[in-house]
Amino acid sequence: MRSEHRCHRHRTAANFFAGSGREHEGFRCRPPDVVVFPRCVEEVSALAKVCHKHRLPIIPFGTGTGLEGGVGAVKGGVCFSLRNMEQVLDLHPEDFDVTVEPGVTRKALNAYLRDTGLWFPVDPGADASLCGMAATSASGTNAVRYGTMRENVMNLEVVLADGSIVHTAGKGRRPRKTSAGYNLTNLFVGSEGTLGIITKTTLRLYGIPEAMVSAVCSFPSVQAAVDSTVQTLQAGVPIARIEFLDDVMIDACNRFSSLSYPVTPTLFLEFHGSEQSLEEQVKTAEDITQSNGGSDFQWARDTETRNRLWKARHDAWYAALALRPGCKAYSTDVCVPLSRLPQIIVETKEDLIENRLTGPIAGHVGDGNFHCLMVVDPNNPEEMHRVHLFTERLARRALAMDGTCTGEHGVGLGKRALLCEEMGPVGIQVMRSLKDTLDPNSLMNPGKILQREEP
Amino acid sequence: MRSEHRCHRHRTAANFFAGSGREHEGFRCRPPDVVVFPRCVEEVSALAKVCHKHRLPIIPFGTGTGLEGGVGAVKGGVCFSLRNMEQVLDLHPEDFDVTVEPGVTRKALNAYLRDTGLWFPVDPGADASLCGMAATSASGTNAVRYGTMRENVMNLEVVLADGSIVHTAGKGRRPRKTSAGYNLTNLFVGSEGTLGIITKTTLRLYGIPEAMVSAVCSFPSVQAAVDSTVQTLQAGVPIARIEFLDDVMIDACNRFSSLSYPVTPTLFLEFHGSEQSLEEQVKTAEDITQSNGGSDFQWARDTETRNRLWKARHDAWYAALALRPGCKAYSTDVCVPLSRLPQIIVETKEDLIENRLTGPIAGHVGDGNFHCLMVVDPNNPEEMHRVHLFTERLARRALAMDGTCTGEHGVGLGKRALLCEEMGPVGIQVMRSLKDTLDPNSLMNPGKILQREEP
Repeated sequence: MRSEHRCHRHRTAANFFAGSGREHEGFRCRPPDVVVFPRCVEEVSALAKVCHKHRLPIIPFGTGTGLEGGVGAVKGGVCFSLRNMEQVLDLHPEDFDVTVEPGVTRKALNAYLRDTGLWFPVDPGADASLCGMAATSASGTNAVRYGTMRENVMNLEVVLADGSIVHTAGKGRRPRKTSAGYNLTNLFVGSEGTLGIITKTTLRLYGIPEAMVSAVCSFPSVQAAVDSTVQTLQAGVPIARIEFLDDVMIDACNRFSSLSYPVTPTLFLEFHGSEQSLEEQVKTAEDITQSNGGSDFQWARDTETRNRLWKARHDAWYAALALRPGCKAYSTDVCVPLSRLPQIIVETKEDLIENRLTGPIAGHVGDGNFHCLMVVDPNNPEEMHRVHLFTERLARRALAMDGTCTGEHGVGLGKRALLCEEMGPVGIQVMRSLKDTLDPNSLMNPGKILQREEP
Repeated sequence: MRSEHRCHRHRTAANFFAGSGREHEGFRCRPPDVVVFPRCVEEVSALAKVCHKHRLPIIPFGTGTGLEGGVGAVKGGVCFSLRNMEQVLDLHPEDFDVTVEPGVTRKALNAYLRDTGLWFPVDPGADASLCGMAATSASGTNAVRYGTMRENVMNLEVVLADGSIVHTAGKGRRPRKTSAGYNLTNLFVGSEGTLGIITKTTLRLYGIPEAMVSAVCSFPSVQAAVDSTVQTLQAGVPIARIEFLDDVMIDACNRFSSLSYPVTPTLFLEFHGSEQSLEEQVKTAEDITQSNGGSDFQWARDTETRNRLWKARHDAWYAALALRPGCKAYSTDVCVPLSRLPQIIVETKEDLIENRLTGPIAGHVGDGNFHCLMVVDPNNPEEMHRVHLFTERLARRALAMDGTCTGEHGVGLGKRALLCEEMGPVGIQVMRSLKDTLDPNSLMNPGKILQREEP
């Protein structure tokens, strides 16, 4: 087994908050003492037993594309890089399911599936490891139609803190639904490596739609764009993607991806279905957007134009960065009930302006989920501090609107205090008791999700 | 607070296995020592604290429509009947969510929603309490399109064993998605009252489709009916219901509901959507069924005819009972990957014939889930024994095909041994550790899901 430190691979906010105050000390790049590269679950289990015996922290590592510092080794220890476990196992096309090892990314899986007529739609943007996506309860642009990892993971193989191996739905099982005992699968989905190491995940697959078409629509106001979103969902249009970009974001994307959309609140839309149903979906959505003052749809019909459009959306991170060369980016993430979106986005934009911050907004508005892509000078501690206070205000604004401090990025190191506000003391106590039960020595990805580590 | 014993309300297999051997002793109607009727969460909490102090078992009771003996008070104790908590709270039509107390049934909720253009689609047949449906992870005929309770519960208020109150997604929160910490909501969904008493559930709602149409199609074989199901899903038809009835079941339904369908394997289908998309869905499905030798569709277009059709499906229980007057019915429930359905149904029918048992088959085949409605003479211990052995063989057949011993009825008392086979020792140990953590004195619905009760 090779030993190599790959911490630099993770595109998190590492180093980002260095020096910005005690609360964010954990966000600094904290390398593990050693990195191991197991090749199979038996090796993961054997290594975990060694760690358990010697009380060494275990930090699972997939592709390191998480955004809340989830792979930082805040207490040192052993990083389990799972990239050498990269087999696609047990594809059952007739049952719409597949099992993958943790080195398999979503793009690798979809390339593997290419000739089967099936695909796995959950798409957080980054080419993340599917087991890592399970660990952070990831979602992204397609969730409004296909759900998040919570709805699409059918079974997990997990190595627990003591090295024992559990199959959360029973070994090899893959019924589309079950009521058999406690839902262990969804206890580990979103547990961010703090309860065990995910070594296999069984996923639900979908038929590739007969036809897909994308469109861009510009709006006179945030309210008009969000009203269009809500009305489209109310009308029962099974829209596959409905992505909001504010004026600052679309301007950045125009510059970065050589596009020329009007610099106003914008929706990127995508429709999946048969040719005939597409026509109807589009007509309904277009009627709705126009009644809200939206522009004519600008079409992306062929695959190439469509891919270019979504690449521009996925490149929002780099487009934001390009607004201020030499700066670093940090993506925050909140989620509120749909009807609260216009208010929270308007207030957040005012907050950004008042506090002289660069934070283009992009969001999966069909789910009420959006991000501010904060662009900040890491050498300016005063600006860093303003960003930190801003992100806290944003999360609290979401909490005050019945929302959550994270719709899809997870808690990691950055949102532990906010999680306490979100859940309240009894909820945190229940989470803590689950953690203590499954990881009594606090070895699994210590310091993440919950603040106190000592049992 | 009134005290009254309502155990007779539950349409479970109570008394069913009385005398059929030690394993099923728990299935006998086991009344609690007392029934309480709290009117609010504060009363539930106060009563739970009394029970906790005096180490009295707590058995939550909704409508008693569960099928695995979940409300039997196997150790006596206090039954919490929640029927007096029957408020629909916090309807947010623009956000597609609502919160209900445990006395609200699915039909009551849908009646309440009638003028909003919204509905809650999960439909297990019985007019069950929605909090009870959350507790058993119920689903039913619409799950193929709209998901089960797992996918449709957004938040729960739960009174824990010590009387403390937890909100599984944080108090009053209702974002459509979240990655904030451990998924407590889905730990309590399906926990069958063994981890806490659900006193509120926040549910996801859906727009009532513009149009609905139902159809019946007869097939030359089980294989042809199931192949049609799989191909319809593969073709991306967003079918709302696709229900299988075997020849015995359709014969029973014909007799009981005065219908006259051919006595062969049959699908009841339902399509939801716009008028135009319905046309296309139906055409695709009809092409597929006909290529598999299915009959022309027999239509149920108007609401009355459609309701009559689905009433016949929901009355399958009574239709089965009417096959043998004076007998009792017992509905088993397994779920397998779609492709294994023809084999398991064919083998199960052979098993029924070989063992001279009456067990019409009906199933939510779009999910791979089906039921045998066993009709049995409770005064014939030898026949009871044959039924018991048959249901065990059926569950093990599902387990051998990567399936589960229960797709939607839950474990209750009847499937505890099978759950052990399904999960394996480590999985059971994890479930047990969660139970011991949240209910260290084994007071919550003792004897259900897990076999050993003493910590």
